[in-house]
Amino acid sequence: MIKKPFLEALKGHVADHPPFWLMRQAGRYLPEYRQLRASAGGFLDLCLDPIKACEITLQPLRRYDMDAAILFSDILIVPFALGQSLQFLEGEGPCLDPVRSADDLSRLRLEGLLATAQPVFEAVSRIKASLAPEKTLIGFAGSPWTVACYMVEGGGSKEYAHVKGFAYRDPQGFKALLELLSHATIDYLCAQIDAGAEAIQLFDSWAGIVSADDFEDFVIKPTVSIVSALKARHPHIPIIGFPRMASLGLADYLRATQINGLSLDPGVPLSWAKEHLQAPMLHKGLSVTLQGNLDPCLLLAGGAVMRRAVEKILTVMQGVPFIFNLGHGVIKETPPSHVAQLAALIRGQESHDA
Amino acid sequence: MIKKPFLEALKGHVADHPPFWLMRQAGRYLPEYRQLRASAGGFLDLCLDPIKACEITLQPLRRYDMDAAILFSDILIVPFALGQSLQFLEGEGPCLDPVRSADDLSRLRLEGLLATAQPVFEAVSRIKASLAPEKTLIGFAGSPWTVACYMVEGGGSKEYAHVKGFAYRDPQGFKALLELLSHATIDYLCAQIDAGAEAIQLFDSWAGIVSADDFEDFVIKPTVSIVSALKARHPHIPIIGFPRMASLGLADYLRATQINGLSLDPGVPLSWAKEHLQAPMLHKGLSVTLQGNLDPCLLLAGGAVMRRAVEKILTVMQGVPFIFNLGHGVIKETPPSHVAQLAALIRGQESHDA
Repeated sequence: MIKKPFLEALKGHVADHPPFWLMRQAGRYLPEYRQLRASAGGFLDLCLDPIKACEITLQPLRRYDMDAAILFSDILIVPFALGQSLQFLEGEGPCLDPVRSADDLSRLRLEGLLATAQPVFEAVSRIKASLAPEKTLIGFAGSPWTVACYMVEGGGSKEYAHVKGFAYRDPQGFKALLELLSHATIDYLCAQIDAGAEAIQLFDSWAGIVSADDFEDFVIKPTVSIVSALKARHPHIPIIGFPRMASLGLADYLRATQINGLSLDPGVPLSWAKEHLQAPMLHKGLSVTLQGNLDPCLLLAGGAVMRRAVEKILTVMQGVPFIFNLGHGVIKETPPSHVAQLAALIRGQESHDA
Repeated sequence: MIKKPFLEALKGHVADHPPFWLMRQAGRYLPEYRQLRASAGGFLDLCLDPIKACEITLQPLRRYDMDAAILFSDILIVPFALGQSLQFLEGEGPCLDPVRSADDLSRLRLEGLLATAQPVFEAVSRIKASLAPEKTLIGFAGSPWTVACYMVEGGGSKEYAHVKGFAYRDPQGFKALLELLSHATIDYLCAQIDAGAEAIQLFDSWAGIVSADDFEDFVIKPTVSIVSALKARHPHIPIIGFPRMASLGLADYLRATQINGLSLDPGVPLSWAKEHLQAPMLHKGLSVTLQGNLDPCLLLAGGAVMRRAVEKILTVMQGVPFIFNLGHGVIKETPPSHVAQLAALIRGQESHDA
């Protein structure tokens, strides 16, 4: 059987060159994506078209031969499939009919989720069937807190006053929302795994704005409930958590969730993460693979400044379980040639004088 | 001489009830502010009108008797006074003609700064003259990194790709911008002190988005240069730093800057900050006063959930040098009665059953 470098790294294996993929590796920086998108309907239509979602997922691997493909989709498919209205407005991001009360909450339905999201699972099957045997297919979902942020705010936000307002005004109602999302996410991810996903990433993009006293309830507990349900049903599927900007909460998150991989944002020094997050787990006989964390703005810049940063990451993470990635998604203005330069650097194929 | 509780706390004094003020305590949540604003021109006009800026600064103290008044102004007065065009568009935030090259940079002029900002210093003098003797007047500025974010992005941003792009593409040019801002900030703050400011707060709102490798150059070094210049000229004026969301960088920031006060965002557990930030400084014979960090969304919520959070903060910070504040600015939808409830709680004037 052919070994998959990405899954090996998540088992704790250390390779000469770390496996890599990039958050938002399929998307607007690629001309072939923009071309396909121009001929399609809206963004949501793309996510729910298995043939196109499969094609988009595979585009970056054709160019850069990443070790993993990540399903082309969106974390807001879950609220959409629960019955919340969702639109993606050009240049403005997502727009949802906000959920701000027990009454709004009562209109969401777990029952229809898998049927509505069926095209996503079909995309997963198609991608899996097209993928080379040494590549890994990553399924994903947003974490309940982050998805709740969008659901309650009705889109992006600066102050998150609506979602925190809901949580503080009606703790029971908000807990019910997080629990509904945990259940939905478990069903949704299990269906992705059944369709062929071989690893899972949980995106908790807004973990960093949670106040210290709420981190346990809003971030850790929902993640624990998802991880333990997935592990019970699919013990061999590794899970990567990405509680972005949760820096001071990372150690607690790791201890509580016992997640297989921890994705780090650019603000986390890798040397610190190696010593204070990874080593203590390894000492307990538990493995955690770190993933990250090149600043996407360095990929945008390219050239010598990116090369130095990549070499530093590779040097620091030598000898420990590691997956190379960005610390956040690819920026849409990124020149595709910079991604090629990055891939070569990670593989040790570019001379240090280039 | 009457002792000022706010300044005493910054000297390391511990009071029965900590002194308090609130970031953005003067502003849109107050009807008297909205009334004054409706009769004025734009936001920038208000900042540059000494009589109105003085009035606005004093409004919250009349209602809640905070221990400190903070000059009503904006961190973007510095780029404006350097010659960058600036507008505040209703509901959209600041809009600047972006600085993205050495050429753009060359058009900024340190020379005119103090003359253009003269109305700010006049406001400081007026406030100082009107303030009760036990109250402290806080002057402020943005830190160079955060001000540079606005100057290069041309306003708010999601990805900060322009400012980081500038920094990575042209490190010398970006360093020149940070140095210009450091010089400008020193002149600007010294003039505030000369006009009557008795303490200074440096707002570094975007410290948290800096990648770990750049934290020293973008956040720490400019702050050190400002703090050391101010300390050389005004050794008795305490300085509070607020590197928001810089969690993993806070210890280095504190050691390097030897700032008198450290303002914390809601993501930082106060018990952790007490043990890992404050105690090590105290052991070295250096004092640092912590400030913070109630989530502004709890003030928005008010009631029992706010009371519990406030009581927890007061309990944890008992016996160590502390100033009560929010972890970020007052949200404009906050009911003024909640601020009254908060003030009473901090002073121990409200029964626990309220």
